[in-house]
Amino acid sequence: MATDKSAGLQDVIAGETAISTVGKKGVGLTYRGYSIEDLAEKSTFEQVAYLLIDGHLPNASELETYQERLVRHRELPLDLKTILEQLPGNTHPMDVMRTGCSALGNLEPEGAAHDPLAIAHRLLACFSSILLYWHHFCARGERTEVTSGEKTVAGHFLRLLHGRRPVLDLHRRMLDVSLILYAEHEFNASTFTARVIASTRSDFYSAVTGAIGALRGPLHGGANEMAMDLISRFKTADDAEKGVLQMLAKKEKIMGFGHRVYKNCDPRSEIIKSWARKLCEDANRMELFNVAERIEQVMRREKKLFPNLDFYSAVTYRVACIPTPMFTPLFVFARIAGWAAHILEQRADNRLIRPAARYIGPAPRPYVPVAQR
Amino acid sequence: MATDKSAGLQDVIAGETAISTVGKKGVGLTYRGYSIEDLAEKSTFEQVAYLLIDGHLPNASELETYQERLVRHRELPLDLKTILEQLPGNTHPMDVMRTGCSALGNLEPEGAAHDPLAIAHRLLACFSSILLYWHHFCARGERTEVTSGEKTVAGHFLRLLHGRRPVLDLHRRMLDVSLILYAEHEFNASTFTARVIASTRSDFYSAVTGAIGALRGPLHGGANEMAMDLISRFKTADDAEKGVLQMLAKKEKIMGFGHRVYKNCDPRSEIIKSWARKLCEDANRMELFNVAERIEQVMRREKKLFPNLDFYSAVTYRVACIPTPMFTPLFVFARIAGWAAHILEQRADNRLIRPAARYIGPAPRPYVPVAQR
Repeated sequence: MATDKSAGLQDVIAGETAISTVGKKGVGLTYRGYSIEDLAEKSTFEQVAYLLIDGHLPNASELETYQERLVRHRELPLDLKTILEQLPGNTHPMDVMRTGCSALGNLEPEGAAHDPLAIAHRLLACFSSILLYWHHFCARGERTEVTSGEKTVAGHFLRLLHGRRPVLDLHRRMLDVSLILYAEHEFNASTFTARVIASTRSDFYSAVTGAIGALRGPLHGGANEMAMDLISRFKTADDAEKGVLQMLAKKEKIMGFGHRVYKNCDPRSEIIKSWARKLCEDANRMELFNVAERIEQVMRREKKLFPNLDFYSAVTYRVACIPTPMFTPLFVFARIAGWAAHILEQRADNRLIRPAARYIGPAPRPYVPVAQR
Repeated sequence: MATDKSAGLQDVIAGETAISTVGKKGVGLTYRGYSIEDLAEKSTFEQVAYLLIDGHLPNASELETYQERLVRHRELPLDLKTILEQLPGNTHPMDVMRTGCSALGNLEPEGAAHDPLAIAHRLLACFSSILLYWHHFCARGERTEVTSGEKTVAGHFLRLLHGRRPVLDLHRRMLDVSLILYAEHEFNASTFTARVIASTRSDFYSAVTGAIGALRGPLHGGANEMAMDLISRFKTADDAEKGVLQMLAKKEKIMGFGHRVYKNCDPRSEIIKSWARKLCEDANRMELFNVAERIEQVMRREKKLFPNLDFYSAVTYRVACIPTPMFTPLFVFARIAGWAAHILEQRADNRLIRPAARYIGPAPRPYVPVAQR
C-alpha cells in the first residue's frame, strides 16, 4: 500500500475549506487570506486564533473581551485535577493532553451550558494548565496554581512552566510567533482526523481528542521532538556535518525536513529560523544555532531537502528552556485554533466522511468448524 | 460541500485492506473471506475477534488459550478506577469509554511491556469492565467487582450489568451474535479515523480513542440509540404506522435505515431481526417486535429504504434489559476487533494519510493593524 498513492490520499480532494491555503503551487501559507509572514510579524496568537475561529480579525474591543475571556478560563475543575494526579510521571505528555481533553468532555460536556465556540475558547485557554498541573504534580507533588497574571497564552505557559523566574519578553514573543506559525495547516492528518470525527456529528471534545492522538505521531507533531534529539547529539557544526553524513550513508531518517505539500520550502521555516538566531545570540548559544544551520546546509546539499517548521522550532524551544517532551503539546496549544475552525466548518455543511477500500484479501471461503481446524 | 461528493470521500479508494468486504456490488459482507451468515450462525465472537486480528480462525487449543487470556485481562488498575469515579453519572457513556481508553494508555502505555497485540486483547477484555465499573459507581456508589466467572465477552457484560440475576443462555448468545455482526465493517468512519491516526505512527490507544470519538456520533454508532428512541414512542404497530407517516410528512429523519455502502439490503439486518423475533417471543413481548416490523414495512413502502444493523439490534438490546445509553458502547466492545485489525494492517505498510482541500476562502489580502479595524 505504501507505494500506492491513494493510500495516503495524496492530492485527493477531501472537501472544501475557507480557512487556509497551504502551498498553492507548492509555496505560501495564508490564514483567511492573510499571509503567514504578515501575521507572524504584525499580529499576536490571540488575534490569529480569533481570526481562524471567527473568520475575521478582532477590533480593539473584541480583542480585549476575547483576551479577558481566555484569562478567565484557565482554571481547571477539581475532578480534572484528581484525574491528572492519577497519570504517571513517565507517561507521554501527549497522552496527558489526550486524556485531559477527553475528561474535560465528561465534566463540561457540549450542550446548552457549553456551546461549540465556548468549548473552543475554553480549550485554548486551559490546555497549558492541564499540561503544567500534571507536570508539577509529578515532578514535585505540588498542586500548582494554574492561573497567572500573564495576558497571553504564550506568557501563561512560560510563567506556569518556570514558576517564579521572570519571563523574558524575547521568549514570550518568540513563543507567541511560534503559536501563530503552528496554529493552522489545512487538511493535515490531525485536522483531517478532527473533521472525520465531526462528520459523524460527534461532539467537539471527541474531535479534538482524536486530533491530539493523531498529532502525537512522529510523522506529524512528534517531528519537532525528533529534530531536537538530532540537533542535541552534536557539539559543533563540524560534528554535525560528519554525523549527518554518516546517518545519510546508513539511510537513517532525518526528522524536520521536507513536507507532503510544500515542494521547495516551508514558508514558516525562515520565520522561525530568524527567531532561533535571535534567541541564540541573546543567550550566547550560537553553537546550537550553528549546529542546526549546518544540518540544514548538509540536507540541502545532499538530499535537496529544506527544513520544515519543526526543525528550527526545536532550537527556539530549547533556548527558552522548554523540556523536549513538551514540544508536541505546544503544537496542541496552537493547533486547537485550526482544529476548532475546521470542526465548525465541517459541521456547517456536513457530510459523513466514509471512503472506500480496495479489497486484497482472501476470496469467499466455507466456514470450518473448530474441531477440523 | 454537502452536495459535493468528494466531501464525504464517497467511493474514493483510500487504501487497501485484506480484512473485510462490504457490499461488493452492493450486497454481502465477509470477514477474511468468511460470510457474515456463516460466522453469525456457526462461530463465536471470540473466534471472530481472533480471526480479524490474527488473520485465521483459531484451532481448539489456540481458542482456549485466547479465551483464558481475555478472562485474565478484565481487571482494571486502581488508578483507572479512581479516574472513572471522577466522571459524573450524567455523562455520555461513550465519553466514559473515550476517557477510559485514553487513560489506560497512560497507565499501560504501548511499548516493551505492552505490544500492540497485547493491547488489542486487553481492550477487548476490559472495555465492558470500564463501562460497568463507572455505571455501578455512579448509580449506587458501589465499587463493583469487574471480574466474573463468565467465559465470553457477551456473558461478562451481561453478568456485570445485571449482577446476581442469572444470564439467560438465549440473551448471552444473542449478544454474542450481535458482537459478531458489529465487529468489523471496512473503512467506516471510526475505522478510517483509527487508520488516519495510526498513519502518523501514533500509539495504539490514540487510534482507538479517536475511533471511539467517531463512533459516538449519531450518523455512525449513535444510530442504534436513536432507533430505540423511535421504536419506544409507539405502543402498537398501528400507532407506529401513523407516527412514522407523520414524521415522514414533516421530513423528520428516521434513524436505522439505509446505508452509505449497501444499496438494497444490509445482510446483518436479517440475522439480527431473527434474533429480535426469538427474544420477543421468549419474553412475550411481540408488541415490541411488531412495532419495529411495521416501521420497517412503512419505510420500505414509502421511502424504499431497508433497515440497517442498528434497527433490530435496538429491539434485541431492549428485551435483554440493556439500558439504551449502553447501545453504542456495546458497538465499541465489538468493533475494537475490527479497529485493532485495521491499525495493525495500516502499520504493516504505512503511508501518512493527508488529503488535500479545495480552497474557497478569501483571496490574499493585506494585514490591517488593530487600531484600523
